[in-house]
Amino acid sequence: MKSSEVPTDQPKQQTTPERHDVDRHADRYAVRTGGMKASEIRALFSVVSRPEVVSLAGGMPNLNALPLDSLSTQMAELVAQDGLTALQYGSAQGVPQLRERICEIMGLEGITANPDDVVVTVGSQMGLDMLTRLFCDPGDVILAEGPSYVGALGSFASYQAEVAHVSMDDQGLVPEELRSTLRRLHNQGRRVKFLYTIPNFHNPAGVTLAAERRPEILRICREHDVLVVEDNPYGLLAFDGQTYPSLRAADPDNVVYLGSFSKTFAAGLRVGWVLAPSAVREKLVLAAESATLCPPTLTQHMVSKYLDTHDWQGQIKTFRENYRERRDAIVSALDQYMPAGCSWTYPDGGFYVWLTVPEGVDAKAMLPRAVDAHVAYAPGTGFYADGGGHQQMRLSYCYPTPERLQEGVRRLAGVIQSELDDS
Amino acid sequence: MKSSEVPTDQPKQQTTPERHDVDRHADRYAVRTGGMKASEIRALFSVVSRPEVVSLAGGMPNLNALPLDSLSTQMAELVAQDGLTALQYGSAQGVPQLRERICEIMGLEGITANPDDVVVTVGSQMGLDMLTRLFCDPGDVILAEGPSYVGALGSFASYQAEVAHVSMDDQGLVPEELRSTLRRLHNQGRRVKFLYTIPNFHNPAGVTLAAERRPEILRICREHDVLVVEDNPYGLLAFDGQTYPSLRAADPDNVVYLGSFSKTFAAGLRVGWVLAPSAVREKLVLAAESATLCPPTLTQHMVSKYLDTHDWQGQIKTFRENYRERRDAIVSALDQYMPAGCSWTYPDGGFYVWLTVPEGVDAKAMLPRAVDAHVAYAPGTGFYADGGGHQQMRLSYCYPTPERLQEGVRRLAGVIQSELDDS
Repeated sequence: MKSSEVPTDQPKQQTTPERHDVDRHADRYAVRTGGMKASEIRALFSVVSRPEVVSLAGGMPNLNALPLDSLSTQMAELVAQDGLTALQYGSAQGVPQLRERICEIMGLEGITANPDDVVVTVGSQMGLDMLTRLFCDPGDVILAEGPSYVGALGSFASYQAEVAHVSMDDQGLVPEELRSTLRRLHNQGRRVKFLYTIPNFHNPAGVTLAAERRPEILRICREHDVLVVEDNPYGLLAFDGQTYPSLRAADPDNVVYLGSFSKTFAAGLRVGWVLAPSAVREKLVLAAESATLCPPTLTQHMVSKYLDTHDWQGQIKTFRENYRERRDAIVSALDQYMPAGCSWTYPDGGFYVWLTVPEGVDAKAMLPRAVDAHVAYAPGTGFYADGGGHQQMRLSYCYPTPERLQEGVRRLAGVIQSELDDS
Repeated sequence: MKSSEVPTDQPKQQTTPERHDVDRHADRYAVRTGGMKASEIRALFSVVSRPEVVSLAGGMPNLNALPLDSLSTQMAELVAQDGLTALQYGSAQGVPQLRERICEIMGLEGITANPDDVVVTVGSQMGLDMLTRLFCDPGDVILAEGPSYVGALGSFASYQAEVAHVSMDDQGLVPEELRSTLRRLHNQGRRVKFLYTIPNFHNPAGVTLAAERRPEILRICREHDVLVVEDNPYGLLAFDGQTYPSLRAADPDNVVYLGSFSKTFAAGLRVGWVLAPSAVREKLVLAAESATLCPPTLTQHMVSKYLDTHDWQGQIKTFRENYRERRDAIVSALDQYMPAGCSWTYPDGGFYVWLTVPEGVDAKAMLPRAVDAHVAYAPGTGFYADGGGHQQMRLSYCYPTPERLQEGVRRLAGVIQSELDDS
C-alpha cells in the first residue's frame, strides 16, 4: 500500500466539498455544520479491513460468542407470532416490556428506576445527541474527561457546544481537576451544562473511576449546579465480574444515565437507553420523537425476547472471558515489545488500552507508517476537542485474536522504535 | 369515559414540567426546548386504542397483508447465516446493497441515482431532522404546505426554524402562492432555506401535486435560490398504480429526496433514506454519524433480503388494493352522512382525507365530544405551525376495516351535526 492511500484527517470516502468542482449549496448550510468533521476513527475503517493489517483501531465488539442458532429461532418466532406488533410503529419512548427489563439490568449496578423514566434510543449515541439537544445552546460548555469518547465530541460539536477537558489519572477523573476547571470557567462567566463522564473502563482511556472518588465528583457537580451525564456501555464487562456503584444510584436527581446493549448483546441492533429524572425524560421523549418518531420496534422486541429467553448474564460472562483473554494478550505484548519511554493504562474491563509514546513521537503523523507496517490504531487527537493527544493512541483489543494482538503490538513497537531512531 | 380524561394539548402521559412540584433542571435547558411540544396526534394514541373507539386519528399502516410466515423464515436465515454482519456496527451511510436496491426503487419514479448519494436513515423522520440540522440556523424560514406533516413541524421547531405555510388546492401546492410567499419573505429580509413538500397523496391533505405544476414549482425555487426537500413516503401507493414524475428526477441538483419503507413494507423497521446532491450527502453522513453512529444493521439487512427474495411490487399492489377499498369506504360514508357545509379532499392514493367543517365548528374543541361518541380524528391545528386548522381535521382510513370506517364517519357526522345544532 502506498502511503498516499492512508487516510488522514480528510478521508477519501468522505471527501470535503472543496474536492468537488463547486458545492452550490455552500451558502445554505447552518453555522453548526462548520464544526462537523469526519471522525479520524471512521476514516480508518476502509484501510483496516484489509486482512494483512492488524487493526487495533476499531471498537467493534467480538460477536463470535453469540448463539446465532437460537437467536435465529427466536427471531423467526418473533416475526411469525408478534409480527403485526413488532413491524408496526411504536411509542417514541420505547417498548414498555423492554424498559422494564432495562430497569432490572440497571439494578445490577445498584440503580432503582421506574420504567417510565427510561427512554429507548437508537444506540446510546442517540441518547447523547438528544441530551445535547436538550441542554446546549451554542457556546455552552460541556466538561468531559481528556481524552473522551469521539462520538460524544462529534455530537457536542454539532450543537456548537464547547468542550473543556478534565484530566484523568489511573484512578479516573481527578476531582481536584474538576473543581479547578469549574472554578476557572465560572470566573470566565461560562455556562457549564453538564459533566459527560464514562466512569467504567473508559473509552478511550481504559481506566475506571475509583469508588472513593465517585461521591466527591457528584458533590462537586452539585455544588456547581452542573448535571452529570454518566455513559456506561461497558459497566458489566469487568474482567473479575464485579460491578461498580453507578453515579446515578448515588444521585438520582442530578445524574442522567446512558446504557446500551451494543457491548453486552449486539451493536447492530442499535438499542440503547437513557434513564433521566422525570422532568428531563419528558423533554427527551419529545426530542426523540422529532428525531426518529420512534426507535425500531423489531429490534426492541428482539432484545426483550432475548432477555426473557436466554441466559443473558451467562452470555455477558462469556463476552468478559473473551475480552479478558485479549486484554491479557495485549498487555503482555506491550510489556514484551514496547520501547522504553512508552506507558499505557491497564484496563480491568472493557475494550481499550491508552498508550502514551515518548516525547518526539507524533502518534497521528506516525499512522501512515504504521499502516505500511500493517498495524493500525486510533490516534489520540480524535479523542480531544482541543488539539491534544498527539502523543497518545487508543489500542482496541476487543476484536482481533490474541495471536493477532501480539503480532500487532510487535509491529507497532517496531514502528515506534523507528520513529525514535529517526528523531 | 369522562371527558376530563380526553387528551387536550397537554396529554397526561407527557405531562408538562409544571405539573411536577419542581423541575430543578428548568434553568438548564437550551433555548430550543421552548419550541418542543407534545404532538396532538401522539397524544391521542392512548385513547384511540380503546376498542370501542373508531380511530381515524393515527396513520398506522395496515400490516395484515404482510406475509409473516415467509418473513419469519427469512429473518431466521438472516440471523443464522449472516448474523455476524447483521448484528455488528455498520457504516453511518447504510448498508451498500440496500442503497443499491433503493436506487432501483426510485427508478420507478424516474430517478437516476448513484447509491453513493443515498444515506439510509432511521425512518425518513431522521432524514428530515438531519436536513434541518444541516441547513437551518435559528430564525431561518422553511416553506411548507399548509397544512403540513406534523412530524416535520416538530423537527423544524426543535431547530428553531420558522415555518411559512403555502396554500394548496385540490391540485396541490399553488405556484402563485409559493411565488408571492417567497417575494414577501424576501422583502422582509428573511432567509428561506428550503421548501418542504409532500407532492404525492399529501399527509394530511390527501391531495397530489398536479404534473403540470411540478416544473413550475421547481423553477420558482431555483429562481429564488431555495432548495426543495421532496418527501415521498406514499408515492408508490397510487390506487390506480400510476407513478408521478418525482421532483428529484427533474432537478437532481436542487432537490433532496426522502423515501421510506414504512408504508410500502414495515414501519417498525424504521428504514428510510435520503437521496441528496453529493456535497450535501457528505455533510449528511457526518450529521447522521453524530446522531446514531449508524442505522440498525439488522433491519437494513432485513429490508435488503426482503427486496431480493419477495415479490415486493406485488406486495405493494396488495397494500394499494387494501387502501383503495378503505378510501372508497370512507368517501362513500362521507357522501352519505356528512352535514351540508362540510367538504373533503378525494385522495388518489395514500392514507388521508382532509375534512373541512362548517364555520362555527371548532374541530379541536369538538374532539372530546367526538371521543365521547367513540370516534377519534386528528384536529387540523396539529398540522399548522401558525395556529391555523381549527376548522379542519385529518381522517386516516389506512387502518380500520371498511365497516368500521363507515361507522366512524357516521358517528363523526352526528357529532358535527350536534355542534351545528348547538351553535
